[in-house]
Amino acid sequence: MSESTNNVVFVGKKAIMNYVLACVTMFHQGAKRVIIKARGKAINKAVEVARVVRENFIRGAMIENVNIGTEILTSKDGNTYSISTITIILRKEG
Amino acid sequence: MSESTNNVVFVGKKAIMNYVLACVTMFHQGAKRVIIKARGKAINKAVEVARVVRENFIRGAMIENVNIGTEILTSKDGNTYSISTITIILRKEG
Repeated sequence: MSESTNNVVFVGKKAIMNYVLACVTMFHQGAKRVIIKARGKAINKAVEVARVVRENFIRGAMIENVNIGTEILTSKDGNTYSISTITIILRKEG
Repeated sequence: MSESTNNVVFVGKKAIMNYVLACVTMFHQGAKRVIIKARGKAINKAVEVARVVRENFIRGAMIENVNIGTEILTSKDGNTYSISTITIILRKEG
């Protein structure tokens, strides 16, 4: 996997370990950075994924950056609403 | 309220608007920064609080920093476990 590849894990409704393993696999395949994204109620799960990856699997991984923001969604009836988002960048040292 | 005061809002189990109003009150009392903290399942609520404060109440507020981390808790039977935490710093411009 080249370093320019975007290694993004979108955290949704599955169990935490699914996303943890996705991150760990990317690091094992040579990724220097893994980007964890989530929105709405999955945000706490994304933070938990980052924690478990660092504490239990990739000890050399550090949190390079955390961003929170807003996305505007449009429902089928044309209404728009805002939803919170998070982006966590994990970087592997060395 | 002097600028050196720590304006910290701990987000827990109450409804989001309780914490939003706590933040808004601190800014209205002259705070330049408000720190929003949460752990575990309240993390997504903390991100939502920051979003609502910025979009609906304090338009000049920006996200100065976001940190995620781990806290070690000890249960009554002596076991320890890790919990994810988030700290969001909101800053009011001007």
